[in-house]
Amino acid sequence: METVNTHKNNAQNTPAETPLDVAPLFKPRSVAIIGMSARPGSASRVVLGNLLAGGFEGEVHLVGRSGGDCDGRAILTDIEQLPEGVDLAILMVPSAAVLDAVRGCVARGVRGAVCFASGFAEMGEEGRRQQLEIAEVARAGGLTLLGPNTVGYFNYVDAFYVMMVELVLPPRLDPAEGPAVAVVAQSGGIGAHIAASLQSRGVPLSYMMTTGNEAQVGLAEMIRFFATDEHTGAIVVYAEQIRSAPDFLAAVREARASGKAVVMLHPGRSERSQEATKSHTGALTGNYAAMRLMVEDAGVVTVDSLEEAIDVGQLLLRYPQAPTGGLGLITASGAICGLTQDYVEPLGLELPPLGEAQAESLREHLPDFLPPRNPLDLGTLCAYQPNLIERGVAAVLADPSVGSLMISMAMPDPEASVLWLRHFLQGKAASDKPAIYVMHNEDVQPSQAFVDEARRHGAIVMRSPERALRALARVTAFGRRQAEAGEPQSPSRSFAQTQLALGQGTQAEWASKAALRALGIPTPAGDLATTPEEAMQIAQRIGYPVVIKAQAATLAHKSEVGGVLLDIRDEAALRSAWDTLYANIDRAEPSLVLDGVLVEKMGERGLELVVGANRDPHWGPVLMVGLGGIWVEALGDVQLLPPTLPKAAIVERLRRLKGAKLLAGFRGAPAVDLEAVAEVVSAVGQLMLEQPQITEIDINPLVAYGEGKGVVALDALIVTE
Amino acid sequence: METVNTHKNNAQNTPAETPLDVAPLFKPRSVAIIGMSARPGSASRVVLGNLLAGGFEGEVHLVGRSGGDCDGRAILTDIEQLPEGVDLAILMVPSAAVLDAVRGCVARGVRGAVCFASGFAEMGEEGRRQQLEIAEVARAGGLTLLGPNTVGYFNYVDAFYVMMVELVLPPRLDPAEGPAVAVVAQSGGIGAHIAASLQSRGVPLSYMMTTGNEAQVGLAEMIRFFATDEHTGAIVVYAEQIRSAPDFLAAVREARASGKAVVMLHPGRSERSQEATKSHTGALTGNYAAMRLMVEDAGVVTVDSLEEAIDVGQLLLRYPQAPTGGLGLITASGAICGLTQDYVEPLGLELPPLGEAQAESLREHLPDFLPPRNPLDLGTLCAYQPNLIERGVAAVLADPSVGSLMISMAMPDPEASVLWLRHFLQGKAASDKPAIYVMHNEDVQPSQAFVDEARRHGAIVMRSPERALRALARVTAFGRRQAEAGEPQSPSRSFAQTQLALGQGTQAEWASKAALRALGIPTPAGDLATTPEEAMQIAQRIGYPVVIKAQAATLAHKSEVGGVLLDIRDEAALRSAWDTLYANIDRAEPSLVLDGVLVEKMGERGLELVVGANRDPHWGPVLMVGLGGIWVEALGDVQLLPPTLPKAAIVERLRRLKGAKLLAGFRGAPAVDLEAVAEVVSAVGQLMLEQPQITEIDINPLVAYGEGKGVVALDALIVTE
Repeated sequence: METVNTHKNNAQNTPAETPLDVAPLFKPRSVAIIGMSARPGSASRVVLGNLLAGGFEGEVHLVGRSGGDCDGRAILTDIEQLPEGVDLAILMVPSAAVLDAVRGCVARGVRGAVCFASGFAEMGEEGRRQQLEIAEVARAGGLTLLGPNTVGYFNYVDAFYVMMVELVLPPRLDPAEGPAVAVVAQSGGIGAHIAASLQSRGVPLSYMMTTGNEAQVGLAEMIRFFATDEHTGAIVVYAEQIRSAPDFLAAVREARASGKAVVMLHPGRSERSQEATKSHTGALTGNYAAMRLMVEDAGVVTVDSLEEAIDVGQLLLRYPQAPTGGLGLITASGAICGLTQDYVEPLGLELPPLGEAQAESLREHLPDFLPPRNPLDLGTLCAYQPNLIERGVAAVLADPSVGSLMISMAMPDPEASVLWLRHFLQGKAASDKPAIYVMHNEDVQPSQAFVDEARRHGAIVMRSPERALRALARVTAFGRRQAEAGEPQSPSRSFAQTQLALGQGTQAEWASKAALRALGIPTPAGDLATTPEEAMQIAQRIGYPVVIKAQAATLAHKSEVGGVLLDIRDEAALRSAWDTLYANIDRAEPSLVLDGVLVEKMGERGLELVVGANRDPHWGPVLMVGLGGIWVEALGDVQLLPPTLPKAAIVERLRRLKGAKLLAGFRGAPAVDLEAVAEVVSAVGQLMLEQPQITEIDINPLVAYGEGKGVVALDALIVTE
Repeated sequence: METVNTHKNNAQNTPAETPLDVAPLFKPRSVAIIGMSARPGSASRVVLGNLLAGGFEGEVHLVGRSGGDCDGRAILTDIEQLPEGVDLAILMVPSAAVLDAVRGCVARGVRGAVCFASGFAEMGEEGRRQQLEIAEVARAGGLTLLGPNTVGYFNYVDAFYVMMVELVLPPRLDPAEGPAVAVVAQSGGIGAHIAASLQSRGVPLSYMMTTGNEAQVGLAEMIRFFATDEHTGAIVVYAEQIRSAPDFLAAVREARASGKAVVMLHPGRSERSQEATKSHTGALTGNYAAMRLMVEDAGVVTVDSLEEAIDVGQLLLRYPQAPTGGLGLITASGAICGLTQDYVEPLGLELPPLGEAQAESLREHLPDFLPPRNPLDLGTLCAYQPNLIERGVAAVLADPSVGSLMISMAMPDPEASVLWLRHFLQGKAASDKPAIYVMHNEDVQPSQAFVDEARRHGAIVMRSPERALRALARVTAFGRRQAEAGEPQSPSRSFAQTQLALGQGTQAEWASKAALRALGIPTPAGDLATTPEEAMQIAQRIGYPVVIKAQAATLAHKSEVGGVLLDIRDEAALRSAWDTLYANIDRAEPSLVLDGVLVEKMGERGLELVVGANRDPHWGPVLMVGLGGIWVEALGDVQLLPPTLPKAAIVERLRRLKGAKLLAGFRGAPAVDLEAVAEVVSAVGQLMLEQPQITEIDINPLVAYGEGKGVVALDALIVTE
């Protein structure tokens, strides 16, 4: 039995040991354009033009079959003529010529290459095969390859732009602006869209990378580079397929350890979008729910729309510490107060009442008809006393129950608008809680002075209160999830060395229960009997009434064929039940040979839950917990959990079940022993992490009793490979 | 027993018989400003200035204590000096002087008045009293009063502007632009915001009315005016309190009968916002859920945010016929296709596959790598073949399963942008399905030529694909609800004359069941017994096993005190059970005198549902249906229904229950007889409409059997007043 180190085993594979060196892509000292054509308007000329327009000062080599020159630069006719050890080759050759070009680059010791050509994995099996071959040549030759099918990238830090389309080149990042957003996208259009949107708001950018088909360099390598890059403060990712779960998760953890947010948009929630994605990139989508669970567990902020990706990226760059408190709201309209409360409630955000200290600090400045509270309605007062904005913002942000703030105002005249903004900035100066200034009248354009002032101070200004609220709700949910999960804990015990006497494949109930008992999970008193006499000895020992259950790994639905007989009250009944059970099985599955019959003490009734675990081939173990029976089957009312979740967080997730009222004691039943449930879930998670031969565990039902009275696994199934 | 006409009885009150004449507010031939001050900058001068700036050509009279003149116009010192029969008085007097001013106006036969002053019902009981007195004086004197606490209004049709703040006056409506949006709001700020937002998009407006405290003229009067106004094509309402449910519903039905959409934003979904609203306007909020149900039943499109109000208003003005089909999507990005599918699924919208005819019409124009389907990804082809936009839009809109369309593109260069828009317009020319053109790159401003072209053709252009999708999902849900509800049907039978032998107050189970039987709702065989001998005769007649249930109107939880005994199998058991039951009741409630004991045949098990009805004091009868037990109690899984819903629509609503899988036959159980359930719901609704003394009906459980096998009301409760 193979056992592996816990920390590397969140999925079945471990991260690549030697990270790729992506530096040649970002900061090459020398560049070669392969496939150069001097023809005006050629794509290679556009690439060269962009390079030079950015002010690239290193050596530039041109290689093209036709030879000649381009604006006075000689065009070499063969890659062989390149000097040894060029940093970056930009491949402008058609798909059929890519493999040869990569071979040529490797032969000349080129360190990195960008491949624009499309027509590989996204076109089907033959393209996929060619792409693998190219990747293998690059790997073996120590060449770092971006693409194929990339649309290029922007390195705003060094003004190094590799782009095949003619563009108004973006400005170089001014390091004085502080940390910037790095964007990495598997779709060039989406990456460019996110970058342009952020830029139009004055959000500084460090890089915009499009990874295309990711024959070699992918999201993980990019995120790992950004994680240690001094210019990058937050990372926005657009993903359609995460090719290596362990590498991706490791990269995210590196970024998080550096205090950088990783915001990710990944289509695939709906079935139909999974189809669309598949045909769009040729990528095979994995299990979306498992992906989302595991990336969130690693610290990714997942978002559900492009607008959210942009808004949340901007927010977490400026305020890396995600809030856990409620929303503070300041407006000039009581109507907006009510509308906002309606809007945020389904988003899981609430407006906490203002504490007495903060209310007191405001009361003397407000007229009687404007109560000092949250939401704070300043009415038309701002027009006469704009400093109320400063006082209001400061008081609301100072409240410990407030985690973030939105001020939503109609835009006044240009002069007043700058003044109001300054009061907002002064009011929030002492706080590092996220605060958004919304000008909600979309019909009025802000003055240039306002825009300049906002940018100078890194103020987050939005036009849509609803976008602002969705973004704040999203970062708050993230902050709360982080707080709930707590610091990663070392497991209190290990099952790595536990001997589980499990065979291969689906295990019968008795064998599965034996394994659970080895983990400390309670099962009913009882044992496997192979003769009526054994059964009676067991019953004698555990006491009547008992239940008997036919045991065989292949007997999937034993109740339905009469393989489970309940409430057997004495020896005579047991003897008769034994015969009935064997007769039932014989009738239903004549060729089946039972392992024997499980004789168990009848348990008391309690609340039935389901605890399960599955090993996703890509993302590793995923736990599931829910209420039993119709709750799972008719409502799909389950919570998915990562296998490392601390017990306190497991209890919190149990409370999020739709049927959670039943856990709290319903219709006179006692509140359920949630600690004991969490203990079982935690043990199952630990086992899945440490014993990778187990692919599935299903405890259904896990009967839960009142607080302090524990749980019993009434039926169980383990599958191994 | 009072019976009332069905059609007027959707709530307890009927609409006002004689509608107020609001014409003097909108189109006065003569105006008097009361409380005129010639002081530069005075509010009354602003009002006068706005009036004249709009080009008002009627007589203008000024009344102000100080007398003198204002820019050469004489100021009368007393209302008494006004000529007889001025159309409209604009009251610029402080709150304390309003009553006298209204009296003065009435004495001079003034037809209408606008009152800006605040300080009435919104300030508490004394203000409310004053407001009532003013309203009564106006009513008695035949004066139509807008306000108090209005911030005024815009009549764009006649360029007649009554506003107390200095504004850049909006342009007069050009009737050639076709129908316009009328806005009416109980909050001036919100009304102005909606109007300005629509105007900035080039949406024509007819009126923007703010009704303030609605001492007399309210939302209903405004909607009724808009319903017959030739310039108004759609109505956007912001409401915080609907003061007369019957008037409001009647006005909405009038507007709907004229083919005009009524879009309403009404805070109050969340508990906290109900508090906020209360303190903001002094209005007492009613039952939000009942309100929403009944206004939607009357044909209102309710929305949940300001942005939605604006977007949906614009959409339904342009496309009054709400769609029922799915979404068609055209983009230049496969990524957008997947993201959109994810985004609309939770909104209840889907992208239907393109039919073969439409796919065929597109195939020859598209390269192999762009399949002709919905969503349609045109990739980068539009740059070279912009006419593909026209072909794509036409083909997708022609598909019968498509109800609306969004095309979402990045903005190309200015010249191409106009060209693309024209192709869009040509493509949709043959269809009247809603279509939105989204330019999703918010960093690029459209050219003036683009904006002009869009406005000239009434194209709906948005910047946010997500707003566009939310708006389309909203109008589609509305269209589907309308289609599902069908045409209002005459009830197939009437209970108006049914004699129900009900007393006053809470009725015991036996009496409640007798009433249900009179409606044709099945109950278990059985009868009320007052002696053991009677019980045995009943049991003899209906057959054993039986159940006995203690009966008294005040015995609320009979099961819990041992007042229900099940599965009684013979005479001896019945005799013994009778004694036990009386002993149990005696122990629990010694002073209680039972009506007797209900002896009923034990029924077969089936699926337990709950059917209920409540009479909202404001909105009238509201029905409720759900799955019984924990589904209702732990999940709140119920559907609220209007009392007039046709049976087919009731079945549809049942299928929307979270636990609907149980209705369809779960774990081997048969599919439930939904027709029979709907029959019961429909009968309960009809009864609530026709017998207004009934305030509550609760059938819990209604046991439902397999298809064709009907239902049985196992327990029931009726409350009358």
